[in-house]
Amino acid sequence: MEQIYQQLIKGIQEYFAKTGLSHVVIGISGGIDSALTLKLAVDALGPEKVTALSMPELGVSAQINIEHAYKLCEALEVTFFSQPINPFLIDFARLPWKPSKLAQQNTKARIRAVLLYNYANTTEALVLGTSNKSEILLGYGTKYGDLAADLEVIGDLLKEEVFALADFVGLPKEIIEKAPTAELFSGQTDEVELGAKYSELDPILKKIDLEKANFSEEDLIQKGMNPLLVHSVIRRVKANKHKSEMPPIIKIGKGETQKFEEVPENQTSLL
Amino acid sequence: MEQIYQQLIKGIQEYFAKTGLSHVVIGISGGIDSALTLKLAVDALGPEKVTALSMPELGVSAQINIEHAYKLCEALEVTFFSQPINPFLIDFARLPWKPSKLAQQNTKARIRAVLLYNYANTTEALVLGTSNKSEILLGYGTKYGDLAADLEVIGDLLKEEVFALADFVGLPKEIIEKAPTAELFSGQTDEVELGAKYSELDPILKKIDLEKANFSEEDLIQKGMNPLLVHSVIRRVKANKHKSEMPPIIKIGKGETQKFEEVPENQTSLL
Repeated sequence: MEQIYQQLIKGIQEYFAKTGLSHVVIGISGGIDSALTLKLAVDALGPEKVTALSMPELGVSAQINIEHAYKLCEALEVTFFSQPINPFLIDFARLPWKPSKLAQQNTKARIRAVLLYNYANTTEALVLGTSNKSEILLGYGTKYGDLAADLEVIGDLLKEEVFALADFVGLPKEIIEKAPTAELFSGQTDEVELGAKYSELDPILKKIDLEKANFSEEDLIQKGMNPLLVHSVIRRVKANKHKSEMPPIIKIGKGETQKFEEVPENQTSLL
Repeated sequence: MEQIYQQLIKGIQEYFAKTGLSHVVIGISGGIDSALTLKLAVDALGPEKVTALSMPELGVSAQINIEHAYKLCEALEVTFFSQPINPFLIDFARLPWKPSKLAQQNTKARIRAVLLYNYANTTEALVLGTSNKSEILLGYGTKYGDLAADLEVIGDLLKEEVFALADFVGLPKEIIEKAPTAELFSGQTDEVELGAKYSELDPILKKIDLEKANFSEEDLIQKGMNPLLVHSVIRRVKANKHKSEMPPIIKIGKGETQKFEEVPENQTSLL
């Protein structure tokens, strides 16, 4: 853990130094991922270079999470702003179309990204992302929403590694032990939405990540994993790959036909 | 031109077919880039599979552009929605910080992306981007704003090629001959903001694009180009490279130090 911790601290310091910006900003929910990212940023840059932005949806974000976010910022002595997203969501009820539930949920994550970048552009700050590797691989996040950032700090850590590192750096137990949630609606939890615990998902994701594009469903199942879960994880990983890539550009070639190797099965799956 | 046209049509058809989605949506401003993208999408998929979304800022978007957008959609017989962004911008005047002009301008582009994706998520549509290669290389666009899309249709065409293809497909002269503008404030034009015409910029961008990371300022200047313009273009291309890449992820290695090869000089330059 010490080595992972040191690599992340160094990574933040080096990238930040090269950008020439004055500070960093992090959207903080009270959950473990943003709490760990905040703690790492403070250890790397000092609290005076870190701003935390809490963007609760009043009535949906649990009060306990709002409190955890605030208390952590107070303990770490970082600049803290709170801006509920509720007023921004009201106008989306008057569109020329009726937004689906999926659209409403994604819009919340995207408004948070617009707010973060509004602050970042105003103060010349670098936006630190808070996505972990399990979420990124599964595509369990909103494209151009919570997946929008300038640098992903814990994006190479599976969720189980996030738990371990959070414990190593001494994050409060109550933040580590809460059920992970995207909080896009009341009572949402990752476990229910993903259909499995991270302790079951991470071993599959680890193999998929190691073997990159070369993994096959048969290989993974032969290694003693639950066939149904492997099938559903592979489906999610493939269908959401577009979320971790830049939009493809149609290429003008010299008479050859362009091959789109990796195309989402369904761009709107998940969040 | 015929060959370029056919390749773009085929590219749209093939990518769209693989996604399994029901239709595409395009944000349309009345400018040449979105008009050309719309025309190509209609030729590739038929008007019944194309929706255009006009998102003017009343008081800032020129009336002539709003009209051009509407008339083109009428002529091409696509589904058309208009949703001004004004109501969405009002809430950004009541933040706990005072947004800079840069932040205000970028926020307009990002709200348009949120609206496009709200429609796309509601109706299971693919978002077609309207950025051209000159803009993408120069980074003359808003990260997670107008650069947000699922597929970039004319992203391999320099602006001068966009003019030529627009003429080839028979777009109305009044759309082709207007001064290009991002319309993030009244009277904005690309030429004034970029400090040169596309006829001067494109030859430099073409060489930079051909030589990828290997170009040097000396090489380009020796080829008879204006040294000051070459210098400023190279500066823009480097400073904005982060806008056409996914956010870097700090990697956990085996004791080695991660090299961030391409780091923006200044993340907030330009839009």
